[in-house]
Amino acid sequence: MHKVTFKFENSEDVTVFAAFGENLLEVARKTNVAIDAPCSGNASCGKCKVKLVGGKLESKKTRHISDEEYEAGWRLACVSTIQDDVEVLVPDIASAYRSRMKVADLSSPGEIKIFDDLKEQVVDAGILLKNDMELVDLTMDVPTLDDTMPDNERFTRAMQALTGMEYIRIPYSVMKKLAVVLRASDFHIQVIYRKTEHDVFVYDVVENEKEVFVGGLAIDIGTTTVSAIVIDMLTGEIKAKGSSGNGQIRYGADVINRIIESMKPGGSSRLQKAVVEETINPLIDTMCRQAKINHKHIYRMSVASNTTMNHLLLGMNGDPIRTEPYIPTFFKTNSVFARDIGIKISSEAHMIVAPNIGSYVGGDITAGAFVSMLWNKPEFSLFIDLGTNGEIVFGNSDFMFSCACSAGPAFEGGDISCGMRATDGAIEACTIDKETMEPSFTIVGEEGTKPIGLCGSGIIDVISELFRCGIISPKGKFIREGERIRHDKYGMGSYVLAFEKDAGSVKDVEITEVDIDNFIRAKGAIFSAIRTMLSYCDFDVSMIEHVYVAGGIGSGINMKNAINIGMFPDVPLELYEYIGNSSLVGAYAMLYSTESERKVYELAQNMTYIELSAITSYMDEFVGACFLPHTDAALFPSVVSE
Amino acid sequence: MHKVTFKFENSEDVTVFAAFGENLLEVARKTNVAIDAPCSGNASCGKCKVKLVGGKLESKKTRHISDEEYEAGWRLACVSTIQDDVEVLVPDIASAYRSRMKVADLSSPGEIKIFDDLKEQVVDAGILLKNDMELVDLTMDVPTLDDTMPDNERFTRAMQALTGMEYIRIPYSVMKKLAVVLRASDFHIQVIYRKTEHDVFVYDVVENEKEVFVGGLAIDIGTTTVSAIVIDMLTGEIKAKGSSGNGQIRYGADVINRIIESMKPGGSSRLQKAVVEETINPLIDTMCRQAKINHKHIYRMSVASNTTMNHLLLGMNGDPIRTEPYIPTFFKTNSVFARDIGIKISSEAHMIVAPNIGSYVGGDITAGAFVSMLWNKPEFSLFIDLGTNGEIVFGNSDFMFSCACSAGPAFEGGDISCGMRATDGAIEACTIDKETMEPSFTIVGEEGTKPIGLCGSGIIDVISELFRCGIISPKGKFIREGERIRHDKYGMGSYVLAFEKDAGSVKDVEITEVDIDNFIRAKGAIFSAIRTMLSYCDFDVSMIEHVYVAGGIGSGINMKNAINIGMFPDVPLELYEYIGNSSLVGAYAMLYSTESERKVYELAQNMTYIELSAITSYMDEFVGACFLPHTDAALFPSVVSE
Repeated sequence: MHKVTFKFENSEDVTVFAAFGENLLEVARKTNVAIDAPCSGNASCGKCKVKLVGGKLESKKTRHISDEEYEAGWRLACVSTIQDDVEVLVPDIASAYRSRMKVADLSSPGEIKIFDDLKEQVVDAGILLKNDMELVDLTMDVPTLDDTMPDNERFTRAMQALTGMEYIRIPYSVMKKLAVVLRASDFHIQVIYRKTEHDVFVYDVVENEKEVFVGGLAIDIGTTTVSAIVIDMLTGEIKAKGSSGNGQIRYGADVINRIIESMKPGGSSRLQKAVVEETINPLIDTMCRQAKINHKHIYRMSVASNTTMNHLLLGMNGDPIRTEPYIPTFFKTNSVFARDIGIKISSEAHMIVAPNIGSYVGGDITAGAFVSMLWNKPEFSLFIDLGTNGEIVFGNSDFMFSCACSAGPAFEGGDISCGMRATDGAIEACTIDKETMEPSFTIVGEEGTKPIGLCGSGIIDVISELFRCGIISPKGKFIREGERIRHDKYGMGSYVLAFEKDAGSVKDVEITEVDIDNFIRAKGAIFSAIRTMLSYCDFDVSMIEHVYVAGGIGSGINMKNAINIGMFPDVPLELYEYIGNSSLVGAYAMLYSTESERKVYELAQNMTYIELSAITSYMDEFVGACFLPHTDAALFPSVVSE
Repeated sequence: MHKVTFKFENSEDVTVFAAFGENLLEVARKTNVAIDAPCSGNASCGKCKVKLVGGKLESKKTRHISDEEYEAGWRLACVSTIQDDVEVLVPDIASAYRSRMKVADLSSPGEIKIFDDLKEQVVDAGILLKNDMELVDLTMDVPTLDDTMPDNERFTRAMQALTGMEYIRIPYSVMKKLAVVLRASDFHIQVIYRKTEHDVFVYDVVENEKEVFVGGLAIDIGTTTVSAIVIDMLTGEIKAKGSSGNGQIRYGADVINRIIESMKPGGSSRLQKAVVEETINPLIDTMCRQAKINHKHIYRMSVASNTTMNHLLLGMNGDPIRTEPYIPTFFKTNSVFARDIGIKISSEAHMIVAPNIGSYVGGDITAGAFVSMLWNKPEFSLFIDLGTNGEIVFGNSDFMFSCACSAGPAFEGGDISCGMRATDGAIEACTIDKETMEPSFTIVGEEGTKPIGLCGSGIIDVISELFRCGIISPKGKFIREGERIRHDKYGMGSYVLAFEKDAGSVKDVEITEVDIDNFIRAKGAIFSAIRTMLSYCDFDVSMIEHVYVAGGIGSGINMKNAINIGMFPDVPLELYEYIGNSSLVGAYAMLYSTESERKVYELAQNMTYIELSAITSYMDEFVGACFLPHTDAALFPSVVSE
């Protein structure tokens, strides 16, 4: 056995033993060392770059490692095997998806404005902002030798009198503690319950003097990113907010790779654990610690996610989703409790799952479309959710069509060599001086934070600016020379955004032709999906009256730049509205407002799914859109006229 | 640290390390070495006798160890501390309660006759012998590109059509496997479900070709002994039967000691684990292995037990049961699932709990009284359940009174130096030659099994015979001399039933004056409870028209001998009927027949509880009954006339 030491930029070393010839990425996986491998470890994404600082690895050389880099010790973990004791440095960027958990600062008004906006609009739409959870003080007679009713009967009768309901459900977890809680506060207690049409369900009983919190958890599970909030179910107030990379990323970047992984022996359980135990539970922990909340006081939760993500979350075999005739286990389900899948909140917490409408249009879109409110307005509106899957809804209060396209993780910084989520150190906005070709940035984090990589909105800016300055061609190839422009021995060009000395990492921050190409295909998928769906419904881009842009890409997204690169249709800028992570906001709506929950179900029922791959013109549209801005320049008059 | 080696008569050594001065019984507990300590380790019961075969212990000498025994190395584990490396021999008898699991031979007609008798009587009483579990073959259309309904909807619709019910509940465990099971057998599956008034609950889906078993589990949890059966829920057939000592015994012999233990930090959880993990789960394992059943195919269970036992099973604080005003958490509960308390059967299995009617008359008695059928007959009947708690019901189809008394574990062989449960090697019947004082036995087990100890029915016989032969006085003192009669230096007499050379153990099998005294107090408690309750209700022993005797004491119980020693009222022998472990049989009835379950609830509602300790004459009655047969000989005319 050989000693393998993983070193990090900002944390303690991890040392394990591995056999001669073992794959370094596998060793890291077994050891729970986070090294992203969106391509599932087949040397195609170049994300798992680590630096050999001692010992010996046998590594294939790939196009992702330049000669200089190889010389300096850089290797792809996925093609390296252990030859002796080794020490490797894992740069922050290599684990950016998984390890960087971001907790929001709720004192900043931006973080909660989007939820406040939603609440206002929901109320305007005549929907009650209220759920069925209640907290009440309850006093019972203290038992005596002449009044020897058992505790559960005494409690049941008091609850019947209080609620006017016959059927009071007391789960085991509550019954177990009843004797102690009643006697600790002299039969004067606080009760957390939920009253429905049919019955009353008691979630918890708490001693009279103790502080009580009635918590709820809403989660958006994206293929790449997981975001969540903890709320007060009684007031709707957001108590904590956080996001983290989806731990499943090491099993593949997109839903297809994940499904394939889930079919291997033990695969479904492995993928379920990656998202529940490595991602969701630590996120809950972090949020609860920050907000000083006991995780057991979260009594209800909601999840919005695409169809594959919610099936893998529930540990189900995803194969029937992937293979003809594409049948998921469920569109709607009401059967799941948090405890069933190991989510560590109250053992009685029920899970609301935003309904899917097809194998590739899931709960993230039904919840998100609800948030856009397009279903409540006469205008023809376009809703675009920029995720690893791009999903599009078009319609108004009379009709709704939806479709999905596979964009890949580029909008969340995946498939991009220096891509990352919008956490500290990410370049989120950029301009380039046409003359000097020098860039200026906005960087996520405190003043003075150095750049580490690029998040989605930053990539849009960089590509738009490179194109505007004539640095790259409409095909995304470098056509100017300069200090910041390099070509490797294969002729692949790149633009250095920040040299190592100015960067927050151990490497230059740059964007390569491969990155640009990946991004162009992602934006091409979105634009061609929009065009194909609209024309399938006998509509035209010019008839769009409003565009809602959703996704974790961030409020920093520059719509003009997105039009400039041909990602969004060239309609007046004022029609665009960024509505944030509408999947998470929709999950919040379903959690906090029972009428909103019903509305999402209704809306899902009324949404027509269009399978793009069945429309022959889609492929032609896609090829035309893989260009800056498009092969048909007439589609982008505002860009061409610049 | 010192090395402590536990040696056994029939199994491998167990070696652990312990600190100087550690208590030997505690070391055994921590190591899961079964040494019974019904007195909770305070040197009063003498059950934890072990033999020091090497090394050094410091041990207090107690009345339970004679000089000869001490010389030979016998020590009480509870008063011994580690002084050096030690080797101790743990005789079989020291772990008789816990470690000897007994599995019934169902091919012997006796084992199942009692259940067949019950079924006949239940049918005679007009009660439907049927539950709501069903197994059905279900065929669905195979999905196509034109029929893309998700699996759960397809399944739900098929079940709606089959059952005519609107609401089909599919739990997570079933939904999770649905896609795989449907596709493994081409959408032609077997479904196990339960149909009630309101809904259909799906317990399981199984591939078409696989063998299916719809199992049920009934358990009687006694303070000393736990018995269980696994049944086929569709036919009522008993597939396996077994019994085991209650693992809680090491925390005390009676309910009061157990409750006290449960109040210590972590106590409720410790007691719950002792009965669930050490007793019930291994019993399920053993039964399932014997009957070749997968434990996950047990979809429903029932429990009958006294109030303290069912509270401790559910991990509840038992203290309010013990202290004025004696309030249990529940009489009736419908909230518990097997998974809630870690019982390893189907995760969806619901637990039927036979209802309690008071802090000291529990579900074992309501279930047992149901089995006696006294509630369905005009005769005034007495129902006696001989357990660690003795419970008595008197009544007929018009009224029922019940009371409880603390008999201690003597009827199950506890509190008796050579006492044991009715497993292999137990003397279950005995006669003594008046002339020679030589005993003859019936021993549990195969022909030629040597005696190890005495079970309840054997003790009754031995004491009755010793008294009949004039070997002991009415006070239980030895008054004849002979080879088999010994006195220790404190003057305590004993009678040797089998000398070491003829015994199946490493010690003589004998009965001492202390044993006799313990037993006289146990039988006195029963008889005085009967007298007190009858006279409280203005009845008299002579008005009894039938006596049902229940309990794990065994069908070998000699009613005449039980009358001879003044344990049962002196009414004609033909009025007596042994009905077996009526608590277990009642649990079976509730499990297999939904109408029987309802009937037990109804019966519990109609039973009046009498608190004996509130009746002043009870103590006088008890004192009078602590005599062979009684201080008032007129109460036992048939005995005196012999």
